[in-house]
Amino acid sequence: MALTGAYKIVLFVGGVGGAKLAYGLSKLLPPDRLTIVVNVGDDFWHLGLRICPDADTVLYTLAGRVDSANGWGVANDTSQVLTALADIGGETWFRIGDADLATHLTRTDRLRRGARPTEVATELCAVMGVEYALLPVTDESVPTIVDTKEKGRLSFQSYFVANRWQPTVTAIGYEGADGASVTREVGDAIDQADAIIIAPSNPWLSIAPMLAVGDLRARLLARDVPRIAMSPIIGGRAVKGPAAKLMRELGLEVSAASVADYYGDLLNGFVDDVVNPPFEHDGLKIARMDTMMPDGEARIRVAQSLLEWLES
Amino acid sequence: MALTGAYKIVLFVGGVGGAKLAYGLSKLLPPDRLTIVVNVGDDFWHLGLRICPDADTVLYTLAGRVDSANGWGVANDTSQVLTALADIGGETWFRIGDADLATHLTRTDRLRRGARPTEVATELCAVMGVEYALLPVTDESVPTIVDTKEKGRLSFQSYFVANRWQPTVTAIGYEGADGASVTREVGDAIDQADAIIIAPSNPWLSIAPMLAVGDLRARLLARDVPRIAMSPIIGGRAVKGPAAKLMRELGLEVSAASVADYYGDLLNGFVDDVVNPPFEHDGLKIARMDTMMPDGEARIRVAQSLLEWLES
Repeated sequence: MALTGAYKIVLFVGGVGGAKLAYGLSKLLPPDRLTIVVNVGDDFWHLGLRICPDADTVLYTLAGRVDSANGWGVANDTSQVLTALADIGGETWFRIGDADLATHLTRTDRLRRGARPTEVATELCAVMGVEYALLPVTDESVPTIVDTKEKGRLSFQSYFVANRWQPTVTAIGYEGADGASVTREVGDAIDQADAIIIAPSNPWLSIAPMLAVGDLRARLLARDVPRIAMSPIIGGRAVKGPAAKLMRELGLEVSAASVADYYGDLLNGFVDDVVNPPFEHDGLKIARMDTMMPDGEARIRVAQSLLEWLES
Repeated sequence: MALTGAYKIVLFVGGVGGAKLAYGLSKLLPPDRLTIVVNVGDDFWHLGLRICPDADTVLYTLAGRVDSANGWGVANDTSQVLTALADIGGETWFRIGDADLATHLTRTDRLRRGARPTEVATELCAVMGVEYALLPVTDESVPTIVDTKEKGRLSFQSYFVANRWQPTVTAIGYEGADGASVTREVGDAIDQADAIIIAPSNPWLSIAPMLAVGDLRARLLARDVPRIAMSPIIGGRAVKGPAAKLMRELGLEVSAASVADYYGDLLNGFVDDVVNPPFEHDGLKIARMDTMMPDGEARIRVAQSLLEWLES
């Protein structure tokens, strides 16, 4: 398939890694040609607030507000509220900056008043000047649950933040995903997509929680368009986060080939990093390029290479 | 009645004025002899948070954390979250400092998890080192509603904060108060009280919302103990807030006598300020003293005078 200019892309993302590619693509495509679908498996209630870590990371990244040292949170944020919470014995294991808190307050208030998560996400984009559609994959609650050897069953943030993803994972569940549905907005975007891209996010913790929602996987398979994932493994490691550690714990080889295996027939294309050992899979077109995205320039360059390959 | 040392006092308070007397009494009486019952008519939901302005004012005052310039809020608080909210177009008309927000987050989280307002108030006292019982008059929601000439019907905070109590009040309602009940804790405290004191808070906006709750007025009347109010009017003015303006709008003379009239047979004693013109009411013992409480020392002095009169 040759994409001839006016094509539409749907990008599936988790947090930091996905946000980088979303940022790069947003600098090359106009808003009507890029829809970003974000994982909600990390979303949780904390201190009475609805917190959506992946959506916020993408939001702050696209808004140019992200703390580039961490990859998440708001740049130059303060932590007055956390300090005050600590003073009165409150929970501070989940670091929320003051500006970040303003986002959670706004979201929680709107949700409590009956707005859909999709509407709230759109409103937050608007107030932060983000013109791209940033859509939660579903408006329902589908929390990722992590079974671990040392600590038993953990909520995602308990595993990821409170326990710094150190426990050994034995299984991962996507609670309620089976019975949940993708939103109308996400469904429409998929139906109209000329290409579907899966960001180099953690396949098990960021992408699988989306693929587990209702009939999403079948809906994607039904689209005869490029369905491409970018490898989150570069040189035998995850750029950030627990992907490589998790693969070992799940008994998998830590490689791009393992990732491609995991996605299986969902993909007809794969973007691998040049430093990885080449591999071949039946029915899979594989592009090899430098996919490291340490800064804004690199993100645009990677997005450019991806789009050029798509158009070729 | 002569109080002989081990007497128990129940003090009914609103916000700033009531907090001052509560502070003074707390410096003279041990925790088992002072129960503070606080107005909840001002409580409201804002930004998804449950905010209890009167309770917080008393809490911060007793904890030695209050901003003494305003009389409410936390001393030396910052406003990082409000600034961030303003950046994303959020509501900032109700000023919430960052440390104050930590209180609201803690309260809201506990309420959302099913705790009673009374339990949460007790927990907040504990974490802030306040040993006195600070009890919401009811665990139910009984919002004060203000009818105004210029702006129609307003929620209390809309009248009080957003409109800076400038609209002309035509009527005041205590929504749901009739069908609500005082808590078991408040009922027990009243039953065991050797004296009932109504702080120099706004009779219509701080005290009446409590008296309107269920059978509270009847329960107080049933107690054959000193039932004393302290005048919120000193020298024809309210020390703070809209009491005097409100009295004019309700067609009342702005005087301590009007306040005593308003409380009616609920009282058998009244503490008037020395600068007010003396008045007499059938069945009402009236003490005259300096009741201005500009600082901590004055609060203790006024509380001391009140206790001495009670014991005499």
